[in-house]
Amino acid sequence: MHTPHGLPEQNLFCLPSSLVPTPWSRYAKPMIDFTSQRHEFAHTIQQALDNTISIKNLSGPGEAPERLVAAMRHGALNGGKRLRPLLVMQTADIFGIPEKQTLNAALAVELVHCYSLVHDDLPAMDDDDLRRGQPTVHKAYDEATAILAGDTLLAHAFALLAEEKCHPAPQIRANLVLELARGAGAGGMAGGQARDLEGENGGFSIDEISQMQDMKTGALICAAVRMGALLGKADKPQLDALTIYGKAAGLAFQLADDILDLTASAEQMGKATRKDAARSKPTLVSRIGLSAAERHLGETIHSALTALLVFGPEADGLRATAKYFAERES
Amino acid sequence: MHTPHGLPEQNLFCLPSSLVPTPWSRYAKPMIDFTSQRHEFAHTIQQALDNTISIKNLSGPGEAPERLVAAMRHGALNGGKRLRPLLVMQTADIFGIPEKQTLNAALAVELVHCYSLVHDDLPAMDDDDLRRGQPTVHKAYDEATAILAGDTLLAHAFALLAEEKCHPAPQIRANLVLELARGAGAGGMAGGQARDLEGENGGFSIDEISQMQDMKTGALICAAVRMGALLGKADKPQLDALTIYGKAAGLAFQLADDILDLTASAEQMGKATRKDAARSKPTLVSRIGLSAAERHLGETIHSALTALLVFGPEADGLRATAKYFAERES
Repeated sequence: MHTPHGLPEQNLFCLPSSLVPTPWSRYAKPMIDFTSQRHEFAHTIQQALDNTISIKNLSGPGEAPERLVAAMRHGALNGGKRLRPLLVMQTADIFGIPEKQTLNAALAVELVHCYSLVHDDLPAMDDDDLRRGQPTVHKAYDEATAILAGDTLLAHAFALLAEEKCHPAPQIRANLVLELARGAGAGGMAGGQARDLEGENGGFSIDEISQMQDMKTGALICAAVRMGALLGKADKPQLDALTIYGKAAGLAFQLADDILDLTASAEQMGKATRKDAARSKPTLVSRIGLSAAERHLGETIHSALTALLVFGPEADGLRATAKYFAERES
Repeated sequence: MHTPHGLPEQNLFCLPSSLVPTPWSRYAKPMIDFTSQRHEFAHTIQQALDNTISIKNLSGPGEAPERLVAAMRHGALNGGKRLRPLLVMQTADIFGIPEKQTLNAALAVELVHCYSLVHDDLPAMDDDDLRRGQPTVHKAYDEATAILAGDTLLAHAFALLAEEKCHPAPQIRANLVLELARGAGAGGMAGGQARDLEGENGGFSIDEISQMQDMKTGALICAAVRMGALLGKADKPQLDALTIYGKAAGLAFQLADDILDLTASAEQMGKATRKDAARSKPTLVSRIGLSAAERHLGETIHSALTALLVFGPEADGLRATAKYFAERES
């Protein structure tokens, strides 16, 4: 079955018709609160990244080389909205877990996101010179250093999850490692990037584009939400609801990104825009058109909010973030 | 203090003079036994890699793409001596841990080793066309796929350590993740590769070459031994002794590799030889000369065996492997 604009229905996360979502206004705290929370938490994450990506904290059997650490810092510290860590924190918040007890998990997800940007920007991949308004890591350093910086950001993410500081219960630490490894790996984010590269030759169906984007962007966003749920010891129905939210949030984020790639300026985005079209990269927007994509984005946010109906006001943070995904301008 | 051929004494793992190591013949089982064990275990690892690097077992939120999985398999399944897994298994064997209970940890170390080969071979790094007599992954596929295959081999290693099948105690699984992440990361193997690239311009002191090699090769070999010790719940003195063994084994392996790069043929090694000299890559052998390097190798094996004096015949596997490191011809 397909929706009116030809999208496979699976993306709409069918829910019993009895669950009629109420308007966003019922859930969302005043926007000013959420915006402050988002900015404050981004600042917390920035500081924590600054601390953890240092020669001292990257030590292992030997001392991390200065230039490599500088490249890792370049890849991870030059801004970024830190939305994935925010999702970890907001999800754990549903279960009353204090922010600082989510920090290692939140950092780990962000490190994986940053590693993926460093590698995706490489000449052999998307060949981007600009990222968040700054030269990409291979431009600021060199290709070999960028490859290694990505590798070490990825390895460090798992170290952060495994260390005792992450969570007192080793079972939860192991679960977090498994969740992140699967979200990042061949059946998740990196597999999605591989599919994306295959798709540059064209010929992808709408279903295939959807699958690719679910993996490339959705998998890590959904993993962030699920990691928050693992920290909060969510039960099965709660984890299922949050997984539906996470998948919808991931799709919404990607749809918004593709729409912005067409409609926003390079200055707004801090990176080159209209590149998808320039390299005939398959996106849903290019297939179904801008206005259908905008409608689909609205429906996806609706699905995300519907999945949260099992929670009360404690999930308001996640509701606000879903809404922000649809409304962001950069 | 330096040894007669100018090497810093720290590499010789000073031990009290009362600990005079006995000849290897006291420890080593007949060579035929060890050789069979090594080949049989390499076969076990090959089969287990064949099983785990499959679309089915790499599944996450989505399905791993066929071409990416093929590239991962190309990078991990075309031979290899599987010495790091062997060290995990032999170390755990000291503590009576059955082989099959070491399998996930052994596989994880090998996946990290394979990922590092795939990335090190890339044009931006060592630019190698041949590995184990086969085209390297970026030659058989393409650069982007090789980068992603390396990334996903690395991520999968951590998934294998985190899953319950690895070990029933989550605390041990978390410890294994931490050990491997540190051994592989910026203060370990990948940091060593970064130092190596810096050193290609020359100007490295013998100490700096030593440090670089301790990280680049030694860190993962030592991590393999320590992971075996973690599986066996080694106490502090046992872990310390095994760490000394692991460091010495790592150094011995690298010395032997550098010596073979000068003395063996490409056919023997399954890869190009004399490349270190061709690109003025700093090695201990190039600095201290072949015969001093061979003497140093002998002393290093001696140190490794001395560290094992706290164990009885249950460590004979590790003894035989140390000896093999000095005697291998490819």
